[in-house]
Amino acid sequence: MVSWKNFDELASYKKLQDVPKVCVKEVMSGENGAKRVNDYSIDMSNGLSFNYAARPVDEKVVEVLAELAKEQQLTEKYAALYNGEMINTGEKRLVLHQLTRGQLGDDVMADGVNKRDFYVSQQEKIKVFANKVHSGEICNAKGEKFTTVVQIGIGGSDLGPRAMYIALENWAIANKTLKMNAKFISNVDPDDATAVLGSIDVAHSLFVLVSKSGTTLETLTNEAFVKDALKNAGLDASKHMVAVTSETSPLANNPEYLDSFYMDDYIGGRYSSTSAVGGCVLSLAFGPEVFEAFLKGAHDGDVAATNPDIKANAAMMDALIGVYERNVLGYGCQAVLPYSQALSRFPAHLQQLDMESNGKSVNRFGEPVNYVTGPVIFGEPGTNGQHSFYQLLHQGTNITPLQFVGFRNNQTGNDVVIKGSTSQQKLCANVVAQIMAFACGKDDDNRNKYFAGGRPSSIIIGEQLTPEALGAILAHFENKVMFQGFVWNLNSFDQEGVQLGKVLATKVLAGDTDGALAAYAKLLNI
Amino acid sequence: MVSWKNFDELASYKKLQDVPKVCVKEVMSGENGAKRVNDYSIDMSNGLSFNYAARPVDEKVVEVLAELAKEQQLTEKYAALYNGEMINTGEKRLVLHQLTRGQLGDDVMADGVNKRDFYVSQQEKIKVFANKVHSGEICNAKGEKFTTVVQIGIGGSDLGPRAMYIALENWAIANKTLKMNAKFISNVDPDDATAVLGSIDVAHSLFVLVSKSGTTLETLTNEAFVKDALKNAGLDASKHMVAVTSETSPLANNPEYLDSFYMDDYIGGRYSSTSAVGGCVLSLAFGPEVFEAFLKGAHDGDVAATNPDIKANAAMMDALIGVYERNVLGYGCQAVLPYSQALSRFPAHLQQLDMESNGKSVNRFGEPVNYVTGPVIFGEPGTNGQHSFYQLLHQGTNITPLQFVGFRNNQTGNDVVIKGSTSQQKLCANVVAQIMAFACGKDDDNRNKYFAGGRPSSIIIGEQLTPEALGAILAHFENKVMFQGFVWNLNSFDQEGVQLGKVLATKVLAGDTDGALAAYAKLLNI
Repeated sequence: MVSWKNFDELASYKKLQDVPKVCVKEVMSGENGAKRVNDYSIDMSNGLSFNYAARPVDEKVVEVLAELAKEQQLTEKYAALYNGEMINTGEKRLVLHQLTRGQLGDDVMADGVNKRDFYVSQQEKIKVFANKVHSGEICNAKGEKFTTVVQIGIGGSDLGPRAMYIALENWAIANKTLKMNAKFISNVDPDDATAVLGSIDVAHSLFVLVSKSGTTLETLTNEAFVKDALKNAGLDASKHMVAVTSETSPLANNPEYLDSFYMDDYIGGRYSSTSAVGGCVLSLAFGPEVFEAFLKGAHDGDVAATNPDIKANAAMMDALIGVYERNVLGYGCQAVLPYSQALSRFPAHLQQLDMESNGKSVNRFGEPVNYVTGPVIFGEPGTNGQHSFYQLLHQGTNITPLQFVGFRNNQTGNDVVIKGSTSQQKLCANVVAQIMAFACGKDDDNRNKYFAGGRPSSIIIGEQLTPEALGAILAHFENKVMFQGFVWNLNSFDQEGVQLGKVLATKVLAGDTDGALAAYAKLLNI
Repeated sequence: MVSWKNFDELASYKKLQDVPKVCVKEVMSGENGAKRVNDYSIDMSNGLSFNYAARPVDEKVVEVLAELAKEQQLTEKYAALYNGEMINTGEKRLVLHQLTRGQLGDDVMADGVNKRDFYVSQQEKIKVFANKVHSGEICNAKGEKFTTVVQIGIGGSDLGPRAMYIALENWAIANKTLKMNAKFISNVDPDDATAVLGSIDVAHSLFVLVSKSGTTLETLTNEAFVKDALKNAGLDASKHMVAVTSETSPLANNPEYLDSFYMDDYIGGRYSSTSAVGGCVLSLAFGPEVFEAFLKGAHDGDVAATNPDIKANAAMMDALIGVYERNVLGYGCQAVLPYSQALSRFPAHLQQLDMESNGKSVNRFGEPVNYVTGPVIFGEPGTNGQHSFYQLLHQGTNITPLQFVGFRNNQTGNDVVIKGSTSQQKLCANVVAQIMAFACGKDDDNRNKYFAGGRPSSIIIGEQLTPEALGAILAHFENKVMFQGFVWNLNSFDQEGVQLGKVLATKVLAGDTDGALAAYAKLLNI
């Protein structure tokens, strides 16, 4: 049995405040810095490694973090989760996204079925459907193949799948496995749907409507928008649309859709990229085999996260150092900086994953906590960010810990040599240079050109951003967020904070307003 | 003469700490909240208004902010800037981006010319060129029209122009003034250029190479990448490429380019959207008249910012409230949340604008300051963000002030009525609902469903996102950042913090490394 305790009840919490602080600038200088780079590295899976040399820890801090992991029973809580305990206490739900990509522990039975079998069956159903679309067996009314897939969804039904699609699009082109182009409609702003519809040939497009509940306002509105467009083009909407939803939703088994694929209440939106939510669009875009490789990578990441030794568990180490930076060193943000254009929307996905999971002020029993929880997450790809907000990261008055991601090889294999180096080498040289510039800074008598250093970072390094590597990186961050939620004793799997706005928006549309709400509504002519 | 003083030297600084705090939840409740919504509004220009009802100020706080504005001579410092004083002391340069869109004060003479005349002459030169491209007088070797324009630039030569293009693309389609599609290559990651080149027809593409110095590593590398592609397609690169640069750069007056357009050292990259840097790509994409309308809006914004009365000066009010939130209330971040999909990259541009300008620890004389300066800026469009990171904004342990933007009408005029309301009405209802949910929260015995409220926000409201409105919004934020820089006594116009990384990257590529830098370089196989 695991025991759920607040972070500040732990003996290791107090110990963590008192362990001597590490000066990143000092420890990263000279040969000691080189030794750290070699020692402070954890093999992940699929050729990836997590290097935390430039984060503000040493053997003593790591020792206390290991005690914390043990005292807060991180490994046991993870096992409870994947073995099917009701971890999402607020909504009284299991938390099973890891099960969409592999079996980690016991069989999990719920709703009268083995849930692993259920997720596999949906993946198989999607595979059969996608293969038929690719072969032309499922086609438009004129017997022509579908060439474009358009996902209609918002939040977790949009950000994750979109980020994953962008991450693999060029890889798929280079590896000649791009089967269909994918587009995404998310915002209720009518100009979003108008723009996407204007950029595609609807007669050859297949739409994937994604809503777990089948009641998401934005998504149903955009569905109606798309159906109008299909109708205006003289097309039968029901032959151009599939649904991804829960079995109990109004969209399930509905003749308005060509087919339906299911997830369930145990898959949170922000954790749904490896379920049918990501599976449908990614299998259509890249082929089911690519999606399977992505799942394999994620499962490998999940397995790696079961290791109770934090020195061999990258997700757990990353989580605990993050907690240390947040609760002991007082840093309020974390920047995610992938040196890969393919990961351009990955920070936006992590922003949701992390901030929606751990941006909470009450523990899993609904009691207010007395410590800070999830940080603000933001980021853009390097080298672009270097020419933008890095100024503040280097010389601003507050310190922001950084999470870099870099790959030895690019995805397309296409490159040029300019001034003796390839673009990929320049890209890698830049990420390495930034880590050291942040860590060690630079003395200068001109204070305007002085860099204080001491700005911590870690880096995930991979051989290439393949589907397997992407899956493993995704799992790393999902499991990191989960472990941090365990440390803070939060329920990382509900999102009550998004409800109030929905309720008030409905009131505004019904004209049921007074006070400032009415005054604002008037200003916007509603 | 203006007097440059640190923020904490001011009498109003001390006063600001002591003025009674405002409880946003309390003042925004009931009829008082409605009164604030009506009273706390400042007309901007072009039908825009800035509403700060839900920010943590009242008459007393505003009174002290007005004193601060006066004591720190914000209006006089702005006048000094636009009248041509050397405000960028670090680099010993004038700061003249406002002059690219209109004359605010005295004639500014530099480099032996009237600078307003210089900027206008470049705009005219671009206009003539763009019109010739659109008419087909300037065309490819086969005599066919160019259909696509591709900007090659990074940082300020990318983020601003890209954000502005995306902001107006659908407006231009709806108003039948989209002359050419625009694409952008920025990252040194070779997959970025590969992907863009793979998505266009190079034979009908015109490339705009943008680098003020003519030496930006990423941009020159991508230029070589593009020239290779043109050569491989059997095309003469010099007939497909123009340069935007300074007159003294190696790219100026160079036969390798079809034409060159100039900016100068008085236009910082992040302030260059209204110079030739934005002017070339936007005039080619939308026509010179649209770019002129955008400039007009920006100039209107600049004029509005000259008003010494903060209650009639939105940029100054926004700046001062931001300083109050940062330095007195201790908030470390600000989120920018446009309820307009067209503004999807506007937060990324503001992130650069703000964080690169004011993310500094030394004052304009190079002396360390004893107060916090620029906050972390991040954001995504609503309603998407609502289904993502808003959880933390509503219920997280830290407070993040919010800057909303909303429009009464969408850009395309295309919309559908679902359940009695249009998508645009739903979009507007959501932004209004969010403001109130953040401000007033909701009591609930279940603490998991409890919203503390007291989370401040303001909103810029417009009729529609037109070129004029976009210009005015851009100028608002540029001038806000400028005023905050004046308050903090910073030089907001240099960016020394981006230099160290460049130096170290060059060392890595030269193999000139030791210690941790060498160890990291080895890990990345450089």
